[in-house]
Amino acid sequence: MKEKPILVFQTDFTYKEGAVCAMYGVVKSVDRSLEIIDGTHELPQYDIWSASYRLYQSMPFWPKGTVFVSVVDPGVGTARRACVAKTAGGYYVVTPDNGALTHVKKMLGIAEVREIDERINRLPSTTGVSVFHGRDLFGYCAARLASGVIDYAGVGPAYPVEQIVELPIAEARFGEGWAEGVFEIDDPNFGNLWTNIPLDDFQRAGFAYGDMPLVTVTHSGIQRFKGRVLFERSFGYAGKGDVMLYNNELMRVAMAVTQGDLCRAYELSFGPDWSIRLEK
Amino acid sequence: MKEKPILVFQTDFTYKEGAVCAMYGVVKSVDRSLEIIDGTHELPQYDIWSASYRLYQSMPFWPKGTVFVSVVDPGVGTARRACVAKTAGGYYVVTPDNGALTHVKKMLGIAEVREIDERINRLPSTTGVSVFHGRDLFGYCAARLASGVIDYAGVGPAYPVEQIVELPIAEARFGEGWAEGVFEIDDPNFGNLWTNIPLDDFQRAGFAYGDMPLVTVTHSGIQRFKGRVLFERSFGYAGKGDVMLYNNELMRVAMAVTQGDLCRAYELSFGPDWSIRLEK
Amino acid sequence: MKEKPILVFQTDFTYKEGAVCAMYGVVKSVDRSLEIIDGTHELPQYDIWSASYRLYQSMPFWPKGTVFVSVVDPGVGTARRACVAKTAGGYYVVTPDNGALTHVKKMLGIAEVREIDERINRLPSTTGVSVFHGRDLFGYCAARLASGVIDYAGVGPAYPVEQIVELPIAEARFGEGWAEGVFEIDDPNFGNLWTNIPLDDFQRAGFAYGDMPLVTVTHSGIQRFKGRVLFERSFGYAGKGDVMLYNNELMRVAMAVTQGDLCRAYELSFGPDWSIRLEK
Repeated sequence: MKEKPILVFQTDFTYKEGAVCAMYGVVKSVDRSLEIIDGTHELPQYDIWSASYRLYQSMPFWPKGTVFVSVVDPGVGTARRACVAKTAGGYYVVTPDNGALTHVKKMLGIAEVREIDERINRLPSTTGVSVFHGRDLFGYCAARLASGVIDYAGVGPAYPVEQIVELPIAEARFGEGWAEGVFEIDDPNFGNLWTNIPLDDFQRAGFAYGDMPLVTVTHSGIQRFKGRVLFERSFGYAGKGDVMLYNNELMRVAMAVTQGDLCRAYELSFGPDWSIRLEK
Repeated sequence: MKEKPILVFQTDFTYKEGAVCAMYGVVKSVDRSLEIIDGTHELPQYDIWSASYRLYQSMPFWPKGTVFVSVVDPGVGTARRACVAKTAGGYYVVTPDNGALTHVKKMLGIAEVREIDERINRLPSTTGVSVFHGRDLFGYCAARLASGVIDYAGVGPAYPVEQIVELPIAEARFGEGWAEGVFEIDDPNFGNLWTNIPLDDFQRAGFAYGDMPLVTVTHSGIQRFKGRVLFERSFGYAGKGDVMLYNNELMRVAMAVTQGDLCRAYELSFGPDWSIRLEK
Repeated sequence: MKEKPILVFQTDFTYKEGAVCAMYGVVKSVDRSLEIIDGTHELPQYDIWSASYRLYQSMPFWPKGTVFVSVVDPGVGTARRACVAKTAGGYYVVTPDNGALTHVKKMLGIAEVREIDERINRLPSTTGVSVFHGRDLFGYCAARLASGVIDYAGVGPAYPVEQIVELPIAEARFGEGWAEGVFEIDDPNFGNLWTNIPLDDFQRAGFAYGDMPLVTVTHSGIQRFKGRVLFERSFGYAGKGDVMLYNNELMRVAMAVTQGDLCRAYELSFGPDWSIRLEK
């Protein structure tokens, strides 16, 4: 018998009340043998961008066929599509089609997408409820797909991959001895900021470990940080409390305070308005 | 062989230290094959009411036979009973009998209850410890029950269901064009408040989606909110930042700020002192 | 076939972003059948002492053979050793050798330790990354060990147990009618403080449940608390809000406020500078 895929959940529900528990109960009621893994339930509230980024960040490390259920859904109960995407690499993502597929589509590729048919793939006992699709639609449909109750075509009608809702992704730029990009996401635990500047492009622009690039951070055009900081492989190369640049876990240039919190210490954040320029 | 039931845990321990880990180790030491699910470990500290409500909120979505372990236990090591209740629907709840069974008893029904016999169903190696029944008694006894080491009678002596400790539950009241109730619980993540007013009673009283009922919230008789707000199926029907009424995941009337935090914005909370009146 | 050991993870990563998810994906990509348990991902950041203590606190409750993966790793990517220790009781700990083995070594015993050979037991696809050994080295190597891809010798070369990095552990002292120790760790959820004074030594020094010892707490020699407080089996013996002493889950004397937060209420904390003296 073919092994059933794992279900990996990410939401902005937190564990503060019974929502995750109810959602997982639905999965286990569809098929007792399904394996559930917490991706995270602490995505920032309503933050579709983070949902999209975290899918991209973790997906490639999972076995092919894994079913990701991503629920950051400020438009729950309104007209936005509920879908299951099949990626180029053979993963599934069950999610509102509200921008959460942005990074997966661009960086990893989406082969096919289907709109969930609510007449078939919605928990029948909850018909009157419009506010909890994590439990009633996404969790239920994902469990049916993973358990083999339905195949991928059974999700509902396919629609063109081009219609998937995408958020704009900024591109980094490079020249001899300089690079420009944005902080595209944070590490909210350690207070680091990750740029959209790939390490190999950065190195081709002339930077090497051990350099002290001049860093200029601007927010909507206003300078928020300027200084020379060490670029190295890891945090321990800088002194405790020092600002530094490093190559992050996705092979992009990132900025941190060694054993500190860059975002809090310098009041920096991420998004398309947060630019970073690096000069030799 | 009969499949072993899942163990679903809810506590106020958090994951900040090693308590949950030790408790789960005990379960796995009883029976390596038992499946453990986190219901939540972030119940508000010592809040038996929330423990009771969260059991009721999630239980019906789980397969029959599931064993819930609920540990909010301010009286640990004192005379309060430790028990295993068997619900009308065939679930088990392993818990201090301190009010945590209130909602399950009233809303779902309890068929039988047994006091845990500590001489048999307590982890022998921890005899001198009186402060951690989650690890030493509830977790251990639940694992023995789920694994089949003991059957339900093996938990300990039965006692009358009428003796189960219950907290008072307020009833909603209705008339033509009005409804009165209390905020009985919050959604602490999104800052919503859930009333004890069932949707169908509310609709019978004359309210319909699209209405703008006049809402009056009082705390111990003092008015804390008054205004007309939209009643709709889901958050997206109101504008971002607007107060609104909606039908929550348990088919009760609830109040929210769309993509905001009602509790924080208006300094509202829940409990028997928090009344809400709705008028057409 | 021999059953595969469980993997228990503890880190300071939190669930705020995709790091845990990526790490668990690596484990499942090595062997889909491995069982993963969250020990905790909320260890205080960079706090090797807490990592060490939490391992010791929970380990003995797990089945022999369980593989613990502990990642509090401020020195990631620098010269500190990455290792797998085998304890006297037959558990494995996969961790940076940075002091995280202190309590396990002293209290439970370590039989053997091996340095992880990165040429074999590092995720090949992440060669350029130096900041995420939880995913690329510890998680990957632990999965290979637990699944049987490698045996213990396959981890890498053994080195003398005496070379394991240890943090200093303070010893309690006793006399007739007195005991002195330190607060060695907190319960960060409930705000309790745990001393290094074993219950049996304390009782041999003349203290019994029901006593009201005189407690003096000093921080770096400055008095921070002085008063007589009840010593009892559990919290419920004192009144709500009262300071009390109790026997904690590891059979050591601890201090709490019943249904309150001692650390916050009296601004107390733990560490070698926090002394406590108890007199009859």
